Amino acid sequence: MSRLVFLIMMVAVLSARAAAATKICSPDGRIVLSVAVSKGKVFYELERDGAAVMKPSALGFVLADGRLDSGFAVAGTDTASHDDTWRQVWGEDEYVRNHYNELTLHLVQKHGKRRRLDIVFRAFDDGIGFRYVIPAQPTVGRIAVKDEVTQFSLTHDAYAWSIPTNRTQYFEGIYTRQRVSDLDTVCTPLTIEYEPGLYMAIHEAALEDYAGINLASRGTTLVTALTPWSDGTKVYASQSMKSPWRIIMMADTPGGLITSRMMLNLNEPCRITDTSWIEPGKYVGIWWSIHKKKNTWEMGPKHGATTANVKRYIDFAARHGFSGVLAEGWNYGWGQGEQLSFMKAYPDFDIAGVADYALGKGLRFIAHMESWGNARLIEEQMDSAFAWYASMGIRVVKTGYVGRLMDGRELSASQYGIRHYRKVVEAAARHHIMIDNHEPAMPTGLQRTYPNLMTQEGVRGQEYNAWDTRGGNPPEHTATLPFTRCLAGPVDFTPAIFNFSEVVEGTHPHSTLAKQLAEFVVLYSPLQMAADEIANYEFHPALSFIESCPTTWSKTVVPNGVIGSYVTIARKERGGDTWFVGSLTGSDSREISLKLDFLDRDAVYEAFVYEDGEGADYQANPYSMGFRQVEVTAASVLSLRLARGGGAAIRIVKVR
Amino acid sequence: MSRLVFLIMMVAVLSARAAAATKICSPDGRIVLSVAVSKGKVFYELERDGAAVMKPSALGFVLADGRLDSGFAVAGTDTASHDDTWRQVWGEDEYVRNHYNELTLHLVQKHGKRRRLDIVFRAFDDGIGFRYVIPAQPTVGRIAVKDEVTQFSLTHDAYAWSIPTNRTQYFEGIYTRQRVSDLDTVCTPLTIEYEPGLYMAIHEAALEDYAGINLASRGTTLVTALTPWSDGTKVYASQSMKSPWRIIMMADTPGGLITSRMMLNLNEPCRITDTSWIEPGKYVGIWWSIHKKKNTWEMGPKHGATTANVKRYIDFAARHGFSGVLAEGWNYGWGQGEQLSFMKAYPDFDIAGVADYALGKGLRFIAHMESWGNARLIEEQMDSAFAWYASMGIRVVKTGYVGRLMDGRELSASQYGIRHYRKVVEAAARHHIMIDNHEPAMPTGLQRTYPNLMTQEGVRGQEYNAWDTRGGNPPEHTATLPFTRCLAGPVDFTPAIFNFSEVVEGTHPHSTLAKQLAEFVVLYSPLQMAADEIANYEFHPALSFIESCPTTWSKTVVPNGVIGSYVTIARKERGGDTWFVGSLTGSDSREISLKLDFLDRDAVYEAFVYEDGEGADYQANPYSMGFRQVEVTAASVLSLRLARGGGAAIRIVKVR
Repeated sequence: MSRLVFLIMMVAVLSARAAAATKICSPDGRIVLSVAVSKGKVFYELERDGAAVMKPSALGFVLADGRLDSGFAVAGTDTASHDDTWRQVWGEDEYVRNHYNELTLHLVQKHGKRRRLDIVFRAFDDGIGFRYVIPAQPTVGRIAVKDEVTQFSLTHDAYAWSIPTNRTQYFEGIYTRQRVSDLDTVCTPLTIEYEPGLYMAIHEAALEDYAGINLASRGTTLVTALTPWSDGTKVYASQSMKSPWRIIMMADTPGGLITSRMMLNLNEPCRITDTSWIEPGKYVGIWWSIHKKKNTWEMGPKHGATTANVKRYIDFAARHGFSGVLAEGWNYGWGQGEQLSFMKAYPDFDIAGVADYALGKGLRFIAHMESWGNARLIEEQMDSAFAWYASMGIRVVKTGYVGRLMDGRELSASQYGIRHYRKVVEAAARHHIMIDNHEPAMPTGLQRTYPNLMTQEGVRGQEYNAWDTRGGNPPEHTATLPFTRCLAGPVDFTPAIFNFSEVVEGTHPHSTLAKQLAEFVVLYSPLQMAADEIANYEFHPALSFIESCPTTWSKTVVPNGVIGSYVTIARKERGGDTWFVGSLTGSDSREISLKLDFLDRDAVYEAFVYEDGEGADYQANPYSMGFRQVEVTAASVLSLRLARGGGAAIRIVKVR
Repeated sequence: MSRLVFLIMMVAVLSARAAAATKICSPDGRIVLSVAVSKGKVFYELERDGAAVMKPSALGFVLADGRLDSGFAVAGTDTASHDDTWRQVWGEDEYVRNHYNELTLHLVQKHGKRRRLDIVFRAFDDGIGFRYVIPAQPTVGRIAVKDEVTQFSLTHDAYAWSIPTNRTQYFEGIYTRQRVSDLDTVCTPLTIEYEPGLYMAIHEAALEDYAGINLASRGTTLVTALTPWSDGTKVYASQSMKSPWRIIMMADTPGGLITSRMMLNLNEPCRITDTSWIEPGKYVGIWWSIHKKKNTWEMGPKHGATTANVKRYIDFAARHGFSGVLAEGWNYGWGQGEQLSFMKAYPDFDIAGVADYALGKGLRFIAHMESWGNARLIEEQMDSAFAWYASMGIRVVKTGYVGRLMDGRELSASQYGIRHYRKVVEAAARHHIMIDNHEPAMPTGLQRTYPNLMTQEGVRGQEYNAWDTRGGNPPEHTATLPFTRCLAGPVDFTPAIFNFSEVVEGTHPHSTLAKQLAEFVVLYSPLQMAADEIANYEFHPALSFIESCPTTWSKTVVPNGVIGSYVTIARKERGGDTWFVGSLTGSDSREISLKLDFLDRDAVYEAFVYEDGEGADYQANPYSMGFRQVEVTAASVLSLRLARGGGAAIRIVKVR
């Protein structure tokens, strides 16, 4: 037998063994994930409903001291199945089923340092995830990842929604629809309109100590591009390393992506024992008035965060069922030449008095830590600051990182930033502080593990409607976000602007009033800001919807939606039978027939509908709003007429 | 000279003298009131704009011991003019100009007891008033009025709006439009559509110790029919007597009657020195739920006035800016065989605790005294009860007199009732208690003198919409009341029902939702009840209007209105620049062009319009409501589309 014949036989035998072991299905059998080693390289591929979805796509790393993407043989495999249901402290659904089949591929390099690499694959009904594990082994010391070579090799070109990595700061971009083959390097989630019956989103889960992912297109193959350290290295580790999960969410409809909880399932369970202090809620604050140039952050004649002004907000918040009042600009660091401190209030702001006043009214003051990217200062002060805040009854801190680089050097989505953000969340947890993080890395579901990580920015939010000279966010923006940014987790978009007057000509929410209400439901955040000045809420009929709307849910469904065009999301309150629905459209008006088949059978409900009124139009007549009250059942179909840039918000109360 | 010639000469001389002295004009000269004695009888007549309005109409009395309507000669006259402006503690206007010319006619009977009678006439720009004064004189001892002969002798037949005295209990009737010549005996105010440019209302002012007036038609002459004592006598007095003012309000438009303050001007100035404790406001309470059969007045499993339930109402009231919470059925007297007491709470109602709880939330509990017509019991207990209530911080008491007769014997609009009601108001004033009087006599403006007499029923109110088997109040009802009942003063109609579900089939407010808001402005009461159950207000967009709406005003105007068809009333808040408008229609839909010329020139306002929404109709679709926000100035004309049984409510805020 010649060596050639022997080799061919061996490959055949190995392949046959691998073929048996290296395939898993989703529990419903629709998704098949296969992995294979070919010529020493490891690939995965995907089928769904019998058709190829992902061609063989490479896996592995380039490490500083050698490649870890080739020379592999399969040393063994493990398979497992898992099915349980866990409860979210807060969220879009109360109970989450975590049901998957798992395959762990143990690889070993046949030559050189004979390094081992494990790849764990999980197949869910709503997609697949996989992560790399470099196990501790004699030949692995300090790990420096030069590149992660993970590929997502599409079977065909398709339209995808994304924001470009290099032209977007803080992920604050308008998602655009382009062919995958035309993409620059983009941020995730990357949402792909793959086939008429298949929508996918590529992202990551459980980013705990690693670099944030980006994707670069090479034709129809997407290649991982990790956010680097300033020295060009992507990830440092020692002895062993676990990557975040790379995930491909898959659904028959765009809305199916929204109700996928795979990302959360791929995060670690809660590490906080006592979560009783973690309370979702709604807040108002000194914020929009600053963006509208009526107030200033820094002390002076127009200072927003004065004791009297914040107490005024607290009085209002208490009357209207808000759980918190934020004040930006309460502490030194905003004026020219001022030394930033998270421990020193401006003299016209009595933080202890205000915090106490809020407690007396049944709510809490929300502190703000704008670091200007000075992460080191946060790390230095956070334990003292959080302890001090907690001593005053403060439980939510909004953090901020405005600035091109963190600590003048590193990108916030780099491993440096990821580590920092996590340290803050962990420190906060020790002091029973909830975090609302602005200028974050893209979220990856870490709130399962640290449910005090309530909400994050990482979105082109409402403030662009205050001052963006290109005219603010287009009407399509909030019809796109639920299918893109929001797949990564809660978003502090700060909806519910009721007064559309302009500071910069043409710049105001490009939305009707009813759509601002719809956004309160559609754009999920467990801490949801009603962002307008309280003067614009006082005596406003639309405020009643905001007052009624919870920020944590027992169930979420998406009756309809087309990415970038319109979306309807229905959510059921926790501990009750009331549903809340938000429906919104881009710049096209449309009629929506909303089937209420998510309601309980054999029950009768009263629907309180806030909708675009006569002549409503986001440009010509944003304020026209209609209200009606209709008896409905699970068999009802509500007809909604959404104006251009319009929406509807509905409260559906079980009456018998 | 024959006796005949002498007599003719004498008459001529007397007439000439009388003619000179017995004529007064309104300050603007449009109304001319003439009085004359002819054949010993005294008459007045009226002209307006040069045309006769009232033909010579008789005056005087029939006393038990002789007629005081004939045998008169003029003993002298006095004339006076008056012009000042006084401030209402609360009301539809803050400052009221009291500008009139006065004529006092001193009459003496030429024969018999030679009794003297004075009649004081006042001519205002908005009508005339006159009162009788029987001065103290040797031949007058105990006075018993058998009849007051005052006539209102119209120059022609005309349509008038009234409720019939003998078929209406507590003035709770539907006003109907009939020819004067077809009228039965009717209550006042009697509102007459006299000529295209002349609307009149006949009523009385300052009814302090006298019998309530009614009018019986004799062709086109209306004759006074006082409400009698059970012995048939109308009024008792001793030594001297002063009647209330008989008033004829006159205006070019129906709305002019609404803005007339003549009735108030003819009441005595305030007799309460310190009025600082008199505070208008809004209230909610345990009331509608009882009428809807969900709760009971009496103690039992469905008892409404329990400590817990009232505290729930207080919590709600505090959050939404109400100043009071009423609970009917808090005290013994509702159950079978229970002894009525205004001093004894049901055991499941801790009145002191509740009153204190309310104070702690910045509002006050409103006590209720339902007497079942047992006026004597009220008089026995009122000083103790009011003192006790006041000691708990209670400042408003709702009194009630359900029952055919007062103390089993007298009519409530008789002098007996009038005296009782006044005693209660005076006792209340001593204890700093405000009164909301149900089953009252028809109001006559006594709140000028006793501004703690806040509001009264004497109207077919909202409760008929809960249980009236003939279908409740017709849509026209609240388009009629402003021009009829409401001319007599504040009305506790209890508007603002938001949930129109039925207990008795077909019986619910015959109104759209927006009209319920309009009624809150249109039907004036300084203590205005938002009458629905709080569960129907919670999270309701329309509540925002109620929250915003004051109950005391600096100015009231009536831009338009047709009695029984529609009306628009605009009121300006005190101490601010915000206007509130209510516009409502009967069963016809209509478009109204509302000129905003009552706004300040050179100012810009934002109008927040709550109006009938698409498809709104009081029968088919009462809940559809529209909202819009429009920038307006004094030059603007708002187009309002009122649905059948519909309305609009507008808040107009000055923005610059």
